[in-house]
Amino acid sequence: MKIPQWADVLEAHSRISGLVHRTPVFSCRSVNKIAGCEIYFKCENFQMVGAFKFRGATNAVLSLDSAFAEKGVATHSSGNHAAALALAARNRGIKAYIVMPETAPHIKQAAVAGYGAQITFCAPTLEARETTLERVVSETGATFIHPYNNFDVVCGQATAARELIEESGPFDVVMAPVGGGGLLSGTAISVKSMQPQTMVIAAEPVNADDACRSFKTGVLQPPLKPNTVADGLLTALGPLTFAIIRKYVDDILCAEEETIIRAMRIIWERMKLIAEPSAAVPLAVILENREIFEGKKVGMILTGGNVDLERLPF
Amino acid sequence: MKIPQWADVLEAHSRISGLVHRTPVFSCRSVNKIAGCEIYFKCENFQMVGAFKFRGATNAVLSLDSAFAEKGVATHSSGNHAAALALAARNRGIKAYIVMPETAPHIKQAAVAGYGAQITFCAPTLEARETTLERVVSETGATFIHPYNNFDVVCGQATAARELIEESGPFDVVMAPVGGGGLLSGTAISVKSMQPQTMVIAAEPVNADDACRSFKTGVLQPPLKPNTVADGLLTALGPLTFAIIRKYVDDILCAEEETIIRAMRIIWERMKLIAEPSAAVPLAVILENREIFEGKKVGMILTGGNVDLERLPF
Repeated sequence: MKIPQWADVLEAHSRISGLVHRTPVFSCRSVNKIAGCEIYFKCENFQMVGAFKFRGATNAVLSLDSAFAEKGVATHSSGNHAAALALAARNRGIKAYIVMPETAPHIKQAAVAGYGAQITFCAPTLEARETTLERVVSETGATFIHPYNNFDVVCGQATAARELIEESGPFDVVMAPVGGGGLLSGTAISVKSMQPQTMVIAAEPVNADDACRSFKTGVLQPPLKPNTVADGLLTALGPLTFAIIRKYVDDILCAEEETIIRAMRIIWERMKLIAEPSAAVPLAVILENREIFEGKKVGMILTGGNVDLERLPF
Repeated sequence: MKIPQWADVLEAHSRISGLVHRTPVFSCRSVNKIAGCEIYFKCENFQMVGAFKFRGATNAVLSLDSAFAEKGVATHSSGNHAAALALAARNRGIKAYIVMPETAPHIKQAAVAGYGAQITFCAPTLEARETTLERVVSETGATFIHPYNNFDVVCGQATAARELIEESGPFDVVMAPVGGGGLLSGTAISVKSMQPQTMVIAAEPVNADDACRSFKTGVLQPPLKPNTVADGLLTALGPLTFAIIRKYVDDILCAEEETIIRAMRIIWERMKLIAEPSAAVPLAVILENREIFEGKKVGMILTGGNVDLERLPF
């Protein structure tokens, strides 16, 4: 398996830099006081489509040879990756085919359609998603862009941590949440390439702790009925992201649901930032493990801000 | 009546600059598309205490001679000015006496107390506030810092527009909401001093339109049972702010409640910023008067982000 090297990240960064926002880094005294450490938030909620996913999708779309590109790209997702891929494809002037469960919220369908993607609906099961995607790919010749278990996607996600370190580093610790592991593996590559002495600590909900179990056992573990407010972190690691995480990540720590909600509220109230629940998981891990982070300088990827305002957890 | 000059604003700016955040200016393509113009938001929701009020309060506190300062400062408010004055006083190491209605939300009491201010509660009427404040002032010798009808407060508020123009100007129009008029009059002084050709257009809720009526008639009008979601804009102009507004402001336009709520939601969903309802009134005015702003470059003070998450209007 080919693992991205630092040179691949640098290449990705120059490839996407005209299309992707260089998002700001925020720090907040009152949050630091609550957390007992000094945190620098890389605000990917301000990224295009409201999430870091646009980095990886853009790099993947731009990395395609033109013979492949002209047939378009495809994926199955109802979340941020679908919107990110749709916009990245539009920016290159190619088609995006998105397979979505027919139960996906209307607002997400509208966002993806608004970027000009062609949506194919399927039953809300993983099997239906996969068979529908296979059919779409064979009919169109489009290239499947996996949301995280993809070399170019990982390289794109890695650029957020690079910018964070350039702007506010060096750090004692850099943190990211982990779902499928695309952001975490990219983050780890950037951190260990730029500052090998910096710890990389991932954050995961206790109620969706498959990455933590995989990391501790060294064997890829399936998710066991994950059920968390952090709906961006329900997916399982892939072989590529797991390999990178085993190589570069120092630890994966878990947080309880009520702490995740409390952390999210702290970010909203104290920082005036709209952050999605998944983005609050690293702060929740700090709140539950103060002794580990006490007095440290921590860089943190605030992953996104796509929240349904009708269904806030507080 | 002594009206602040540009030199007074410059002096205020250098006086407060070490204590006050130079807040970022944000622009958002999808908001621009919805609004039909190019808007630059000066993000005072990221200011200390979560609102622009900290600029004016800090300037007023730092402008006091030490003989006055050592007796402290006082005001009556349950809102952002109370928190701003409390923190500004603490920063100078002097006392702040805040008169607050006993019905003020617990969270606001806690914020003011957290900054070390001494709170005196009173009945929730204007008369009770004023008599209680008079008593506190006569007992302590503290200086009353009016929330807006105060020379130094106006000079402090003016610094936000100066930074906005320096960073992203020139503009065709600069907008601010109007309640008591401290922010608006300061904004107008900065705009007309830096770029006299730029229009200054204020925004007010239809349901609290006393500033608009005062402006149109040339006579200070009382508020008539104001009732708006924009709870920062319930107050009436003072003689000082009215004089400045008559001299420098080009127009005051009003927006309906439902448009204010829609504008607030657009800022939350598209920009991922927590903005209080008052901060959304200028965008609401644009949405109701597209023909006036079509294609223009607009600077806008996003006043603050102190919102009760339990009582969102959507």
